Amino acid sequence: MDIGSTSQEKARFFAGAWGRFKALPGQLMARIISIAKSIKKLGQDDPRRLIHSFKVGLALSLVSLLYYARPLYDGFGVAGMWAVLTVVVVFEFTVGGTLSKCLNRGFATFLAGGLGIGADYFASLFGKQGEPIVLGILVFVLAAAATFSRFFPRIKARYDYGVLIFILTFSLVAVSGYRVDELVVLAHQRLSTIIMGGATCMLISIFICPVWAGEDLHKAVASNLEKLATYLEGFGDVYFQSCKDEGSGVGSKDGNGKSFLHQGYKSILNSKNSEESLANFARWEPGHGRFPLRYPWKHYLKIGALARQCAYQIEAINGCINSDIQASEEFKSKIEGPCSRMSSECGKALKALATSMKTMTDPSSANPHVENSKAAMKDLKFALKASSMENADFLAIVPVATVGSVLVEITKCIQKISEAVHELSQRAHFSKTVEPTVSPEKPQQQQQLLHRGIVRPVPDTSDDGNSDDVVITIEEITTDSPEKGRPDQHRVLKPGQV
Amino acid sequence: MDIGSTSQEKARFFAGAWGRFKALPGQLMARIISIAKSIKKLGQDDPRRLIHSFKVGLALSLVSLLYYARPLYDGFGVAGMWAVLTVVVVFEFTVGGTLSKCLNRGFATFLAGGLGIGADYFASLFGKQGEPIVLGILVFVLAAAATFSRFFPRIKARYDYGVLIFILTFSLVAVSGYRVDELVVLAHQRLSTIIMGGATCMLISIFICPVWAGEDLHKAVASNLEKLATYLEGFGDVYFQSCKDEGSGVGSKDGNGKSFLHQGYKSILNSKNSEESLANFARWEPGHGRFPLRYPWKHYLKIGALARQCAYQIEAINGCINSDIQASEEFKSKIEGPCSRMSSECGKALKALATSMKTMTDPSSANPHVENSKAAMKDLKFALKASSMENADFLAIVPVATVGSVLVEITKCIQKISEAVHELSQRAHFSKTVEPTVSPEKPQQQQQLLHRGIVRPVPDTSDDGNSDDVVITIEEITTDSPEKGRPDQHRVLKPGQV
Repeated sequence: MDIGSTSQEKARFFAGAWGRFKALPGQLMARIISIAKSIKKLGQDDPRRLIHSFKVGLALSLVSLLYYARPLYDGFGVAGMWAVLTVVVVFEFTVGGTLSKCLNRGFATFLAGGLGIGADYFASLFGKQGEPIVLGILVFVLAAAATFSRFFPRIKARYDYGVLIFILTFSLVAVSGYRVDELVVLAHQRLSTIIMGGATCMLISIFICPVWAGEDLHKAVASNLEKLATYLEGFGDVYFQSCKDEGSGVGSKDGNGKSFLHQGYKSILNSKNSEESLANFARWEPGHGRFPLRYPWKHYLKIGALARQCAYQIEAINGCINSDIQASEEFKSKIEGPCSRMSSECGKALKALATSMKTMTDPSSANPHVENSKAAMKDLKFALKASSMENADFLAIVPVATVGSVLVEITKCIQKISEAVHELSQRAHFSKTVEPTVSPEKPQQQQQLLHRGIVRPVPDTSDDGNSDDVVITIEEITTDSPEKGRPDQHRVLKPGQV
Repeated sequence: MDIGSTSQEKARFFAGAWGRFKALPGQLMARIISIAKSIKKLGQDDPRRLIHSFKVGLALSLVSLLYYARPLYDGFGVAGMWAVLTVVVVFEFTVGGTLSKCLNRGFATFLAGGLGIGADYFASLFGKQGEPIVLGILVFVLAAAATFSRFFPRIKARYDYGVLIFILTFSLVAVSGYRVDELVVLAHQRLSTIIMGGATCMLISIFICPVWAGEDLHKAVASNLEKLATYLEGFGDVYFQSCKDEGSGVGSKDGNGKSFLHQGYKSILNSKNSEESLANFARWEPGHGRFPLRYPWKHYLKIGALARQCAYQIEAINGCINSDIQASEEFKSKIEGPCSRMSSECGKALKALATSMKTMTDPSSANPHVENSKAAMKDLKFALKASSMENADFLAIVPVATVGSVLVEITKCIQKISEAVHELSQRAHFSKTVEPTVSPEKPQQQQQLLHRGIVRPVPDTSDDGNSDDVVITIEEITTDSPEKGRPDQHRVLKPGQV
């Protein structure tokens, strides 16, 4: 390597460095713009985030000024900082979250303060020498036991913060080294400042643009049903239609057909944690708007689990659509009718259920669609039984058969969802929009009476007229408990725990 | 209602109440026993929970005694309670969690303390009247901005606690009303006690029975692969064998066949959140054991996402097994060979991949099984193309066809998992156990060379000899990016963010 090449390299290096340096302001500008855009998007996606930020700022300014303007509460002294601390730590996005933390903090401080004073008194009985040892042992034992209790799923879900504050307060009080009479004054001060901070948070979070966890849960579950409905309503057309147009069909790798299908259902696959935490917070909330105090929030988890079950099946169907095996057009045309009907009726049923949830009205309007989808399922079975193909190419039949089979599973799942929404409508007393009694003069109203497992054959919607068969199929399905398929769904959060 | 019946009712009521009262000690005893059992089970499931509880107790006792024994650090005074507070709030189950909180707390306190002193100085320029107003505005603006920043997924995932402490410290310092020179002393005291508490936590969590988040993630992902393997290895035998024995087969509603199948895969369906938080904590951990400092933790999320994808498919297959449609024995026997082989080879491949991850050795031992499963997939296609059935009952064919079709999807998924594990083995420098070069004298070693997308036809395992077809199929599969199927998988936690 000679000197010339080295100096050339150096020159290239400096030129590169200079280029990067010149580009720096531009890059910085681009970075700032991209950050500003993402801030704007974050605020536009959910304006409540901006409002929440202002609410926290307001609560903190109020409490801080109270703390700053010392003459107002000279009695509190330095304990006033606990009010600031409480506001910062306790203020959550939802009302339920804030209330849960406030109440946890208040009760834990009260309990731990009392126990701490007791521990101090108990330790003082052992004299100057024994006191620190006894206190150390007490702190060790209580902290270890309380920490272990946080591993219980039930305590973790609802009282985790309370246990944390319990350990904190107990340790602080026990080892503060004050005399008991001083401690009582201190505890009183601390508790009153915590109550002041907590009350500020609770009032602001409830009365200024409240974000109710329960309402969020309600909307999230209903919108999950809608997402499933959008996919299913579009599915039949896209899968069967595009094949007619293109020949090779949706199966082509460029995802031509797939792009028509709404992929929103994918967010449902991982919705379990957020639904559970919302249900958990909702339990702490007072009655608000359309939701009274003892609203059956845990029932939403059941509907959510069924919606996830349905999303798993759709995920499987998505795989079939993108399969590289050429689907048999002949076989497809044989089952197109029932399959399209099954998927569109399931979609309509889900949409009706979602609307009924959103408006909190009786979900009976979904029943005809559920019945139609059941009838279409029977039709598919008859179509399959009746069909015969000469020189059948089984390879080409497989993907179509899979779509049919998974659609049957989806239809069964929709029936369970419909039952769960009906149960919710009864527990939550949704308003009735149809007559609850059967008048013999209106036989066409019978199909709107699918309540509490009373299943009737609907001869006018099942176009083959085999009403006996319909009843048998329904019984097979309704004996199947909704939780049976997903035994782990309620393992983390038991029904009684939400 | 006469008096007699009323007094009878009263008597019945009291008898019932007395009965309940007598049963109380028994119920209490039963309740205590059940709680004790669940405590024992919790400890046995993961003994590290007990150890963690003792570690927290120890850290707290140490810091408390230091705080109690005032002569030791008279300089700190009441600020010593911040050490206790830090220990309680910061000590997490995993080393990564503890380090993340400690570092977040330390840096946030330092930064916010500095800014708070600056704000105090700035506000003092406005005189006695203007000071509280300026301070109030400053606290409001900074608290609102910082709260809003917590909605950014990237900040939420890694710096949430830091932002919280920033708001807290800034408000406390800004409104403390001390003069700047006093504040510097106070900030010094507080920072040093926080560092003392944090250091105690870090030392205890790293040196006494450490629980590494990275190791947990490593084990969790490998064990997820094993769970899938257990299901797939058992599937072929259970599905095809039990049908031969019973006639009506696994399809029967009592779940006779299903009970043989390991349902452990269900826990994978909702594994996303725990994997993401473990990967997040793992990034904070220093190098430990087999994992050096810059270990590619985010790559585990990719493998985890693929494992979930596979679990969704298995969930769909589970639906088919429990279908109420009688499956065609004739058609079943036609595809039994390739299907059983596909499922068992996929299971073996997954088991080999899991073992390779656990032992951190080269995953080449899985390659023959992956190749075999591909060959079985081809065989299935040929078997389907070649088969012809007279008077085929399509209704009975559908469930069997679905099982075959979903198995094909699973096989494709296993290939992607294998590629992802190979990529991990290269990034994480797993130890090589086989020769990395091809010697022309050993053609049977070619099949162990499936690295970085270099795919070779393996004529000796594909028993139909159509090696051209094999290449085409593989290319179709490898061009499919692993993330393509799950666009939402990395939305919450971007690759760069973990």
